[in-house]
Amino acid sequence: MMKRKDLLDLQSLDKSEIEYLLDTAASFKEILRRPVKKVPTLRGRSVANLFFEPSTRTRTSFEHAAKIMSADTYSLAGSTSSLVKGETLKDTMLTLDAMGIDAYVIRHSYSGSAALAAKYVPNKPVINAGDGTHEHPTQGLLDLLTIREAKGRIEGLEVAIVGDIAHSRVARSNIWGLSKLGAKIRLVGPATLLPPEADQLPVTVFTNLEKGIAGADVVNVLRIQLERQNEAFFPSTREYARLFGVSKAKLKGAASDVIVLHPGPMNRGVEIASALADDPEISVITNQVTNGVAVRMAVLFWLMGGTT
Amino acid sequence: MMKRKDLLDLQSLDKSEIEYLLDTAASFKEILRRPVKKVPTLRGRSVANLFFEPSTRTRTSFEHAAKIMSADTYSLAGSTSSLVKGETLKDTMLTLDAMGIDAYVIRHSYSGSAALAAKYVPNKPVINAGDGTHEHPTQGLLDLLTIREAKGRIEGLEVAIVGDIAHSRVARSNIWGLSKLGAKIRLVGPATLLPPEADQLPVTVFTNLEKGIAGADVVNVLRIQLERQNEAFFPSTREYARLFGVSKAKLKGAASDVIVLHPGPMNRGVEIASALADDPEISVITNQVTNGVAVRMAVLFWLMGGTT
Amino acid sequence: MMKRKDLLDLQSLDKSEIEYLLDTAASFKEILRRPVKKVPTLRGRSVANLFFEPSTRTRTSFEHAAKIMSADTYSLAGSTSSLVKGETLKDTMLTLDAMGIDAYVIRHSYSGSAALAAKYVPNKPVINAGDGTHEHPTQGLLDLLTIREAKGRIEGLEVAIVGDIAHSRVARSNIWGLSKLGAKIRLVGPATLLPPEADQLPVTVFTNLEKGIAGADVVNVLRIQLERQNEAFFPSTREYARLFGVSKAKLKGAASDVIVLHPGPMNRGVEIASALADDPEISVITNQVTNGVAVRMAVLFWLMGGTT
Repeated sequence: MMKRKDLLDLQSLDKSEIEYLLDTAASFKEILRRPVKKVPTLRGRSVANLFFEPSTRTRTSFEHAAKIMSADTYSLAGSTSSLVKGETLKDTMLTLDAMGIDAYVIRHSYSGSAALAAKYVPNKPVINAGDGTHEHPTQGLLDLLTIREAKGRIEGLEVAIVGDIAHSRVARSNIWGLSKLGAKIRLVGPATLLPPEADQLPVTVFTNLEKGIAGADVVNVLRIQLERQNEAFFPSTREYARLFGVSKAKLKGAASDVIVLHPGPMNRGVEIASALADDPEISVITNQVTNGVAVRMAVLFWLMGGTT
Repeated sequence: MMKRKDLLDLQSLDKSEIEYLLDTAASFKEILRRPVKKVPTLRGRSVANLFFEPSTRTRTSFEHAAKIMSADTYSLAGSTSSLVKGETLKDTMLTLDAMGIDAYVIRHSYSGSAALAAKYVPNKPVINAGDGTHEHPTQGLLDLLTIREAKGRIEGLEVAIVGDIAHSRVARSNIWGLSKLGAKIRLVGPATLLPPEADQLPVTVFTNLEKGIAGADVVNVLRIQLERQNEAFFPSTREYARLFGVSKAKLKGAASDVIVLHPGPMNRGVEIASALADDPEISVITNQVTNGVAVRMAVLFWLMGGTT
Repeated sequence: MMKRKDLLDLQSLDKSEIEYLLDTAASFKEILRRPVKKVPTLRGRSVANLFFEPSTRTRTSFEHAAKIMSADTYSLAGSTSSLVKGETLKDTMLTLDAMGIDAYVIRHSYSGSAALAAKYVPNKPVINAGDGTHEHPTQGLLDLLTIREAKGRIEGLEVAIVGDIAHSRVARSNIWGLSKLGAKIRLVGPATLLPPEADQLPVTVFTNLEKGIAGADVVNVLRIQLERQNEAFFPSTREYARLFGVSKAKLKGAASDVIVLHPGPMNRGVEIASALADDPEISVITNQVTNGVAVRMAVLFWLMGGTT
């Protein structure tokens, strides 16, 4: 298998690479069940978490993955413009590189920023933790791992992704990851929130929730970003919840063993009903969170070449 | 002794539990005097500090206690509403639990929030680091340890708590801890800052400072929250300082070996005179800070079941 | 060599102390080239980074230096007035001291604040990471190390410091460090940005860039603080760039092997041309960053008395 420097997206990974990462993550889950969660894999190595967009949960997940493998972590958080006052992304990367930081996790509101950052540090791994509306590859991997655990396979599954697909990097990473592993993908949402490039993607599009999830094995419910509401992509939160909010009642037409994912944080009662989110027979949301740590350990291990 | 999951208050602890924690903390102080302050007790265990209300000193004290015992620490700070954007306390706890974080230290402006958080993680310890006006049990424990060190006992001591009792979680934890260990408690402050439920507490109430501290062995001076001043609980800061500010002169009627505590951060010249705060014969304020680290080590050890 | 408690400035260090620190830092650079960058020197010791003024890069450099030597680090950041709400610098220092924190790195907007902090903790080292317009001694040391590496010596070099000298703590630490090691120093900038006390410093003053850098072996370009622009020290950023911005063309009169330093973060196109900053034949800016970590390791080692 090709050795890569960075993880910027799932679009450019091939099936065997994705399967290697899922298998590695699955094997790392045993460490997470130990009382003493500490292995020396990345001892004396350092990981900088550069969060130009705030995200407590993703940052903590990466930080925890790194610390379990004994790496030192550095947290640099701030708004897009002021992580380092007035400094360009180029100079921020060159500076951290010169300090000897070994790997970089980057979240940034501009699509393509992780790829740009990766060019500035030609000898160090960069992991995209979400760049604009482009991709969020570790979220895609943790969704794949969670589905594979629940269903035993990805190949041939009918997966419905519901919500604001147009602005969702989670959706894009899901689409690439799922299609490479042989799932059939449906995008479900109001026409204003479906991506204009949908006809070039390996997907089927639905603007009606019931039709979109009919017979689905997996429903991945996206977070509605309430701060986008005044851009008028949908009339009101209540309207959205009524038409596209997923609940147990709405799932009647799905496969009898359907599972539901959500990338979090949830708007309970908007895009997902609270009772559904908490139903352990259907919801695999907490599994996703656990698998997030395992997947991030696998990615750090893959790119940083840890020794075990 | 009963094994507990959480430390939410001192009200529900019994005397033997409090004494166990004080004895454990006292024994841990030896570690704090070593040049190399590091024991492997909690190696490979993780503690999340969730500070919905900011507090540099309490957060640093807990973080230091955890790191001395080799735990990994995660700091999640933010305002009440935005620690994780729009997420409920329930989902924040479920998420961190699913990541495999082993214990939680929580400060929050709502009374009862720590108890609520504790219900969401039924298999993990939650430590209340201050919830609204309810309790701040580790502050209560460190005050007890500091008094016991200075006086050799708690039983039978006359302890005056001075200031804004009504809004003080420190006062409430002191009242429960001190009364369980046999001290006699006086609450001293302007009538507007005394708790309405005082008649149901094991205390005597004074609205005159001189009378309240006459013969007292211990005076615990509470911080006046200047940001509450516009709620008009007292006419002015100067007025408060004149009537209830504690100074050496005001302590003349107290026991000749009286000690003074303050939970910090101090408003020097308001609730406490600067010269008194710095007088090593009377003030035990820096001892309180040192004991805070020892007490938090003891609590983490008790609840996380560290192995030595 | 005298044992010191603190590093507050370069003005009070003697030549042998500066050379000891440079030699120690140079020897530590070998550790930075290892894949596993971790030595046990300061295991079980703790360092608090108190950044009353924000600085992601300096804070990360100190944190990295400390962690490489296995120290635990605590980050306390905030605006000048609110690092701990309403608390004096005195009480912040006394509190951290009582917690058992072993060393303090302080950045503060008031000149003299690091010296003041050092008095409050008479048994613990304090390192000045920049105090107002006074000094930034570790920046001075890393500049010296970088020049010595590039030139093989400091003695006899012609060094031009260009820009806002009046408000620059970097300039002041450079002046003291360079003069003690025998360099000849020129200050170059518009008259409004030259220090009023220049005639008492071991320097020559130039208000013309070409004259100031004629024959110079080293040009240290200072950051223009754009936020000071409305104080009208110079007519416009464009005017400043035209008259005092350093580029390859402007360096024609300098020594043929001139090197250029910049303390960062850079305003590319203002005080330094982007092509010059990126020219590996002339710019030693990334070397400065690497040497910053080594110098801070040396300072921590010197003051904390690490054992190897």
